Amino acid sequence: MPKITFQPSGKTIDVKSGTELLDAARKADLKINSSCGGEGTCGDCVVRIISGYLESDSPGILSHQAFEEGFILACKTRIIEDDVIIDLSEQLGDKAGKFLDNQKSKNLIQKELLPKNWQLKPLCFRWGINVPQPQLEDGLSDLDRLLRRLQQDFGNKEIVYSFPLMHKLADTLRAENGNINLMLIEEPHQIRIIDIQPDSWDQGQYGIAIDVGTTTVAVQLVHLPQAKIIDTQIDYNSQVECGLDVISRINYARKPERLKELRQRVLKTINELIQKTTKNQNVEPEHIYNAVVSGNTTMIHLLLGLTPEFIRLAPYTPTILEAPNITAADAGIKINPQSWIYFSPAVGSYVGGDITAGLLCTDISTDSDDVNLFIDIGTNGETVLGSRDFLLTCACSAGPAFEGGGIDCGMRAASGAIENAEACPETGMATFQTIGNTKPIGICGTGIINLIADLFISGWLDSAGKLNRTKKCQAIKVEGRRARYVIVPAEESGSGKEIYINETDIENLIRTKAAIYSACSLMLNQIDLKFEDLTSIYIAGAFGNFLDIKKAITIGLFPDLPFEKFRYIGNASLMGSYMCLVSQEFKEKQKQLAQRMTYLELNTDPTYMEQYTGALFLPHTDRERFPSVVCD
Amino acid sequence: MPKITFQPSGKTIDVKSGTELLDAARKADLKINSSCGGEGTCGDCVVRIISGYLESDSPGILSHQAFEEGFILACKTRIIEDDVIIDLSEQLGDKAGKFLDNQKSKNLIQKELLPKNWQLKPLCFRWGINVPQPQLEDGLSDLDRLLRRLQQDFGNKEIVYSFPLMHKLADTLRAENGNINLMLIEEPHQIRIIDIQPDSWDQGQYGIAIDVGTTTVAVQLVHLPQAKIIDTQIDYNSQVECGLDVISRINYARKPERLKELRQRVLKTINELIQKTTKNQNVEPEHIYNAVVSGNTTMIHLLLGLTPEFIRLAPYTPTILEAPNITAADAGIKINPQSWIYFSPAVGSYVGGDITAGLLCTDISTDSDDVNLFIDIGTNGETVLGSRDFLLTCACSAGPAFEGGGIDCGMRAASGAIENAEACPETGMATFQTIGNTKPIGICGTGIINLIADLFISGWLDSAGKLNRTKKCQAIKVEGRRARYVIVPAEESGSGKEIYINETDIENLIRTKAAIYSACSLMLNQIDLKFEDLTSIYIAGAFGNFLDIKKAITIGLFPDLPFEKFRYIGNASLMGSYMCLVSQEFKEKQKQLAQRMTYLELNTDPTYMEQYTGALFLPHTDRERFPSVVCD
Repeated sequence: MPKITFQPSGKTIDVKSGTELLDAARKADLKINSSCGGEGTCGDCVVRIISGYLESDSPGILSHQAFEEGFILACKTRIIEDDVIIDLSEQLGDKAGKFLDNQKSKNLIQKELLPKNWQLKPLCFRWGINVPQPQLEDGLSDLDRLLRRLQQDFGNKEIVYSFPLMHKLADTLRAENGNINLMLIEEPHQIRIIDIQPDSWDQGQYGIAIDVGTTTVAVQLVHLPQAKIIDTQIDYNSQVECGLDVISRINYARKPERLKELRQRVLKTINELIQKTTKNQNVEPEHIYNAVVSGNTTMIHLLLGLTPEFIRLAPYTPTILEAPNITAADAGIKINPQSWIYFSPAVGSYVGGDITAGLLCTDISTDSDDVNLFIDIGTNGETVLGSRDFLLTCACSAGPAFEGGGIDCGMRAASGAIENAEACPETGMATFQTIGNTKPIGICGTGIINLIADLFISGWLDSAGKLNRTKKCQAIKVEGRRARYVIVPAEESGSGKEIYINETDIENLIRTKAAIYSACSLMLNQIDLKFEDLTSIYIAGAFGNFLDIKKAITIGLFPDLPFEKFRYIGNASLMGSYMCLVSQEFKEKQKQLAQRMTYLELNTDPTYMEQYTGALFLPHTDRERFPSVVCD
Repeated sequence: MPKITFQPSGKTIDVKSGTELLDAARKADLKINSSCGGEGTCGDCVVRIISGYLESDSPGILSHQAFEEGFILACKTRIIEDDVIIDLSEQLGDKAGKFLDNQKSKNLIQKELLPKNWQLKPLCFRWGINVPQPQLEDGLSDLDRLLRRLQQDFGNKEIVYSFPLMHKLADTLRAENGNINLMLIEEPHQIRIIDIQPDSWDQGQYGIAIDVGTTTVAVQLVHLPQAKIIDTQIDYNSQVECGLDVISRINYARKPERLKELRQRVLKTINELIQKTTKNQNVEPEHIYNAVVSGNTTMIHLLLGLTPEFIRLAPYTPTILEAPNITAADAGIKINPQSWIYFSPAVGSYVGGDITAGLLCTDISTDSDDVNLFIDIGTNGETVLGSRDFLLTCACSAGPAFEGGGIDCGMRAASGAIENAEACPETGMATFQTIGNTKPIGICGTGIINLIADLFISGWLDSAGKLNRTKKCQAIKVEGRRARYVIVPAEESGSGKEIYINETDIENLIRTKAAIYSACSLMLNQIDLKFEDLTSIYIAGAFGNFLDIKKAITIGLFPDLPFEKFRYIGNASLMGSYMCLVSQEFKEKQKQLAQRMTYLELNTDPTYMEQYTGALFLPHTDRERFPSVVCD
């Protein structure tokens, strides 16, 4: 088998001839980025051949010159018979940044939308009973007696349990004269036994709320009897290395071993986060008895090891919308192995459980006459428009620009990210703030929005997204036909590299905001309403604390409405998961919402392209829609 | 850690100080017998210390002289700090014998009791359907469409499936325009999906019937669509090394690691037998979609890893009587991992699923007015008395004498076993036949029954079980107060050792037959019937082909009734499992039988001891009960 040596680490690995270089490096546990999922279009997986011969289909996105100099894309190159030495230097460094503790636990949900005390009834709870002692006369087994006793309390509900629990049944029933504590999960037609313990057992009862995002994963450890969130942890979904957005991940997952890899990666992220919460709070993972997981349809497919291919291909049909509940052991989530994992139900291939969870954090889920709009801006953009009488939803291929994806110097709202930036109207030079007040290493969504709005208002950027080449500005550099705006020169940046946004980045951002705005616009059209008819607009997403509604209106992301109508609710998918965990009523409500929602497929709507094209300007081709936006 | 060296193999192993020598040898994969389950009462685990110091509680059953000579019981000896060398020579050799092919597949069940053609409807069957192709408009996932389609066929039944099946759902639904084949299991209220395949898939559909006996395990590979038994395999339950009867096994299982060991042992036996059938018949284990397992309550507890301790202790309450059905993967049985394992329901701690399965092979399960008796003589003895109107059952601690257990030269009805023996009325010398016509290595149940009956009739044995010391006979050897009857001298035996029965063996046998006879007698008394009122007596057990009813009556095992009333039906537990596998109706019938049966606990019945004591003679103290038995 040919031997591959990776420099600078010197790690070697033997692989079968025909292996893709990308797979070989991952087998050697070496990190290679691949934003596009191995399609050869992002160029992130560039490496250099030091010696040996490999087979490469095409230079892909690389220039002919780079290709001549030995640079290749790892995703488009296969090992053949030859031993080779590969230089991974281009893959070093990490501009991802770390999440700060004070970013994690802020609850932005309106108090009146949280479950009330009388609605707090966790899915999973402790139930103390006495099971009669065994008797020769009645001929009942231990299991028979337990089930009969439970039927007294839960009447007509079916009682189910995992078989491994039977292993401790005999001893537990006899330990304290039949006085036992059960951990139960109650559903409308079923009671599920999760654990059986003697009466004196008095351990904590915890649940975990999980949001599986395309870019980040967040978990909340919840003390169930008090419905109290006691720890929150966030990290990047380690699938990010295999593709930045859902389509790249789906492409990456086409090989069965890569589908397995993606599953393992997200499980690793989830389990590490859970471990952090339990260590922090000194909780035994065994005492976590229930989990609610919300995520988009692709993320849930990958988490469950289901092929996501048909989500990408027309007619966009996933294997499952409402994932069957399974044990933690089967799911691969490291809490009590018999605990039960609930998945928030999805509505379509591109409107997932993260949205039905998020809706619980809005007035759309209450029995209100008002018409409200919910916009979730993550790696994709999903919108819901609704009232008591109707619920419309759609998804737009927004792209990950607001999460820093597809932006040269973009990053998530993590430590070192420029979260707010202004351009001086006179000199055009930038001033900025970073998360954690550290040296800047990149720019996140709010930084990009605020900066572009500012550049536009002060005339450094035109409505088509072109930087001003006529007015003198040291920050604007022109190279060939493209210009870029330098925010931080190399010598001042934390990474030693210049931080900028270029016209390609700005185009990406304009496409993203146009997709979201026009999706909302189209939904309103469908039911003959206008933006002015909306009572509230709920904005969910990981923007961080600096989302400036005025500036988001300036670039045309949000409609031009009074600021007080907007409510930024942060990670609504995570909060919705928490609500289901602590309230059977909210879980039922979520299920009903999912069933009531009508999914609009934008791709097949002829008027969508028209709306979208009109929005591909700052703020819009139709300036009358944005009366409050006044440029210098 | 102290080092143990086992001779003659020279194998060494390091173990923690305090380890029992029995556990140490098993950890080293060396065989040590332990008929009593580590209680120190059988003496089977005797080994000799060559060097080193060990800690021993007591010599146990060993003579003081043997103990002085370095012989010890492995179950009563613990490793301490010292390195030791142990001689296992006493453990070598195996008188178990092999089962012959022609012993395995004989069907002894009356044809009219087998499922009729119109009753043949296997639990598991193939179901071909067309599932509509995905459509953008209907918003249905793959799973939604599959379930809707199945609901058309199975109306109000709940449809369930194992999650791993979802992994191939998307591809299978699209492979052949939605034409698919399902493997389904139908129950009264439920349809379970076991496999999903494209329409063109045309593999065999097999099931496996399993009888888990205390001494032997038997499996039958069944072609489900034809309900045809295509292979039968039998072997010793490899738990035998850990105890000969259920009580020894329960004692052995008291340590958690030994409970696990017992589970692994029986699974090993089952899986090896299944592998033999599939290799023989060129069948893929993946294509076995269903299994029915019948066994006594203790065997099923051990197979499922459930603590059997409370079966042994009053009030004799098992963890489960009706074991929940589980997947093959969960059970550890190596067939299609999603296939479903059914367990025949038990009635009590000592009347298990082997009995409810066995009843299906008798007229007791038909809607007959006749009163019939079923006697299953295995390692234990269970009896059922019943008609259309009532069903009584009880178990007696018969002991394994009829399977060769507790008899010095006893063995199962396997190759080399003396299955028939006669004593010459004049000289008293034995003539015999062996299974497989090989040199004799031991004597099995029928051999013992026939020989004892013969010795009794011809005056070489008295009704109290004492050999004749007055009449001259070369075969009767007296040593001290005990005499033995030599069947084969050492120089003619296959093992090089004398084959005999001694007065202790005969006492064991008399206790066994007395337990069975008096249990039947007591049941009849309960409902004011006599043996004469019985229409048929069904005898189940592994006696082999030479069960001589006349001689079994002579020793008082069976009542003195006309021969034509007796029906020997062989391994009824295995055949009953087969019937459930191929007929939903028979499985339902079995369930109803289990519910209808009334369990008599002999230990608490004051008249039982009276009945039993009366039967401790050949054939009985009350000779009027056996008018046909006439001695020389």
